[in-house]
Amino acid sequence: MISGRCAACKYLRRRCPSDCIFFPYFPPNNPERFASVHRIYGASNVAKMLQQLPHHLRGEAADTLCYEAECRTRDCVYGCVKTISQLHQEINKAECQLAKTRAEIAFISSSGGQGRTTTTSTSSPITSSTKF
Amino acid sequence: MISGRCAACKYLRRRCPSDCIFFPYFPPNNPERFASVHRIYGASNVAKMLQQLPHHLRGEAADTLCYEAECRTRDCVYGCVKTISQLHQEINKAECQLAKTRAEIAFISSSGGQGRTTTTSTSSPITSSTKF
Repeated sequence: MISGRCAACKYLRRRCPSDCIFFPYFPPNNPERFASVHRIYGASNVAKMLQQLPHHLRGEAADTLCYEAECRTRDCVYGCVKTISQLHQEINKAECQLAKTRAEIAFISSSGGQGRTTTTSTSSPITSSTKF
Repeated sequence: MISGRCAACKYLRRRCPSDCIFFPYFPPNNPERFASVHRIYGASNVAKMLQQLPHHLRGEAADTLCYEAECRTRDCVYGCVKTISQLHQEINKAECQLAKTRAEIAFISSSGGQGRTTTTSTSSPITSSTKF
């Protein structure tokens, strides 16, 4: 019988003990979730990382390990550091746009509202690039 | 003689072969860099990940693996996913601020430049929160 084993024990072709460290976080119906962390960290490292945490934090830790492993599988060079880098760029863009928009306000204010046409044309492009 | 061995071979107490996969990316003067990736991924997984990449991409991969490992060491639950989440929050804040600032422009434009006082008071706080 193989039913009742978690995805990790199924993958590792071993008996799933009643106190299996993987069981609550790697259900049998999602084998790719375990395969992914196993590929990047190895089963024993994942077990070690989960074991050193209190029970109520293990689910979140398993989720973030899976996320990082999936990113690393998709991008073997940059992993989820690529996402961090892209988000920094987005923030820089948004800050630039904010500065420009504030400059527009100053311009409109100083010109007594006569700079309306310039305003609408320069403040349009950034919203779409900061969407995720 | 132990000189000439890379940080990985020193850490693993083994001879450092001339074609050592770790040597170019884990210099002996930075033992913590290897200790960090070893703690999270294990030496064999790091070697495997580097080996599957062309030489010119291995340095960047080693750097991003070190970054992720250091984040995971500092925060065992969220690792660098915490940074990603914080950056998303910063972007949301910046977008909100941008929308508010645009609404101010519309208001000033429609009131013929008479909304100057409101403008300067509401557009000030975001810049500091989007700095890193």
